[in-house]
Amino acid sequence: MKYCFGVDIGGTTVKLGLFTEEGTLLDKWEIRTRRENFGEAILPDVADSLRKKREEKDIAISEIIGIGVGVPAPVSAEGIVRNTVNLGWGYKEVNKELKKLTELEVMTGNDANVAALGEMWLGAGKGQKNMIMVTLGTGVGGGIITDGRIMTGTNGAAAEIGHISVNDAEMEKCGCGKRGCLEQYASATGIKRLAAIRLSQDEEPSVLRGVQEPDAKAVFDALKKGDAVAEEIVEQFAAFLGYGLANIAVITDPALIVIGGGVSKAGDIMLPYIKKYFLEKAFFANQDTGFAIACLDNDAGICGAAKLMIDNQKTEM
Amino acid sequence: MKYCFGVDIGGTTVKLGLFTEEGTLLDKWEIRTRRENFGEAILPDVADSLRKKREEKDIAISEIIGIGVGVPAPVSAEGIVRNTVNLGWGYKEVNKELKKLTELEVMTGNDANVAALGEMWLGAGKGQKNMIMVTLGTGVGGGIITDGRIMTGTNGAAAEIGHISVNDAEMEKCGCGKRGCLEQYASATGIKRLAAIRLSQDEEPSVLRGVQEPDAKAVFDALKKGDAVAEEIVEQFAAFLGYGLANIAVITDPALIVIGGGVSKAGDIMLPYIKKYFLEKAFFANQDTGFAIACLDNDAGICGAAKLMIDNQKTEM
Repeated sequence: MKYCFGVDIGGTTVKLGLFTEEGTLLDKWEIRTRRENFGEAILPDVADSLRKKREEKDIAISEIIGIGVGVPAPVSAEGIVRNTVNLGWGYKEVNKELKKLTELEVMTGNDANVAALGEMWLGAGKGQKNMIMVTLGTGVGGGIITDGRIMTGTNGAAAEIGHISVNDAEMEKCGCGKRGCLEQYASATGIKRLAAIRLSQDEEPSVLRGVQEPDAKAVFDALKKGDAVAEEIVEQFAAFLGYGLANIAVITDPALIVIGGGVSKAGDIMLPYIKKYFLEKAFFANQDTGFAIACLDNDAGICGAAKLMIDNQKTEM
Repeated sequence: MKYCFGVDIGGTTVKLGLFTEEGTLLDKWEIRTRRENFGEAILPDVADSLRKKREEKDIAISEIIGIGVGVPAPVSAEGIVRNTVNLGWGYKEVNKELKKLTELEVMTGNDANVAALGEMWLGAGKGQKNMIMVTLGTGVGGGIITDGRIMTGTNGAAAEIGHISVNDAEMEKCGCGKRGCLEQYASATGIKRLAAIRLSQDEEPSVLRGVQEPDAKAVFDALKKGDAVAEEIVEQFAAFLGYGLANIAVITDPALIVIGGGVSKAGDIMLPYIKKYFLEKAFFANQDTGFAIACLDNDAGICGAAKLMIDNQKTEM
């Protein structure tokens, strides 16, 4: 039996997991992300933690396929990142440095892309080869799997789903400087904005009027109670998201679209709304695209990181 | 030295080419596409023609890597097409049938996707691994190459670039039944439509007023003469195309966008217009995307078909 480590480096914590090659998660744990001094301790801390786990479990280096890593930045095919603000890193050769520290093979990918691969391997996308994952969190991110592999692009910046334009008439600016990005409507922040705009338009009664600055959770909770104003807000959110996803589908032709991130915790109740607008806008060849809510939660990153390493090893054999 | 055949099956003619594995086109020729009786003669005709060429050149079967084929339809990973109206075919297992007829390995892809691979191998995209090709013909088609491979999607219907939505406010229907597809503005037909609309708006003098139903060629010819109305029409065309391409780029992160098809024969004069609107709408990570006019013309299909077979053989070794 062969093993593989999956590592998901975030701005606050590093999540780590030990997997079998077949996809059993044997152990998972976390360490703190030490960002001080340009994050110079992060990779040595990861190496230390993995070595201890290896000794604890009595696993030889030869039994380990390698280490897959997800980082919150664009990553080149060689595992090079530039200016990872969240971690304090400037230019960093992740594969090379971590390999030197551990004597193990290393493969690094963007965290959102890697999470998509995780959902495909062990989550909502099990068995799929062509899948979009869209992550609705503070912002909107995502990953695209095509023919079983992460689409990375020339700058490691593929699948920037949050910045597909869905509203040419928008006047407010997105964080990226453009106007009309999907992120302005489908992120947690975006839904909060849609709610504030809707509530300011008239005095129609709504349970949301009793909530100060209603957020995405409040909106979906109100929807579950049958609140008509909340439903209008969800329709707006779904219209922009469905439109954006239809445009991504006509380019990538996925079998399945997985919705993840904090906003997706509202659950299956959002799917019929998203599907309705997707079908209205989707090309005929994409009408059978499936939809599912992500199910790995915070483990998607470590799962996908391990899978990235496992797949890469197979390619090299 | 190893050889490979590239075959591009169109509704009127089948184009065929003999290549070296390294990418030298040794010979090319055409045969008629016999569509009668559900196109039952098409593959036998191809097999005959390739056998004759092999005998003429005195090349043994063992010296040939295989046959790459492009067809005007979505193609599954196994080389299966369904309902290829242009060829008269219903369900057709292209790889299997042609292999049986020739005793050679066969790989089949969609013609527009395969043409993109051709431009990457021997044309405007030489040396690229991440590339979009958009073909502006009667309609708008295209192909997307990601990490050196054609993106095919789950139904073989990826890169339907003509049907990305670029104008939510459009009232006229596209041939696909949706409204606001890129094809409605950036195809030869689309430019003709934009020209007719613009010319009907006022009486501003233009050389286009002396042309009956000005087409894309007339518009670009007028632009070259400095005609202001023609420039307005080109600006509109470029605004929709640039917007659509920016949305495709944020999803696929290409190094290069290649513009092909009949409309691209207007040449480099169109590139600054397209770039201007692309840069206005593109995500910051995509600002360095290059633009080029396709250069293989009608040979892109046979080149890409041969390359598809050559790459596939390498994967299997």
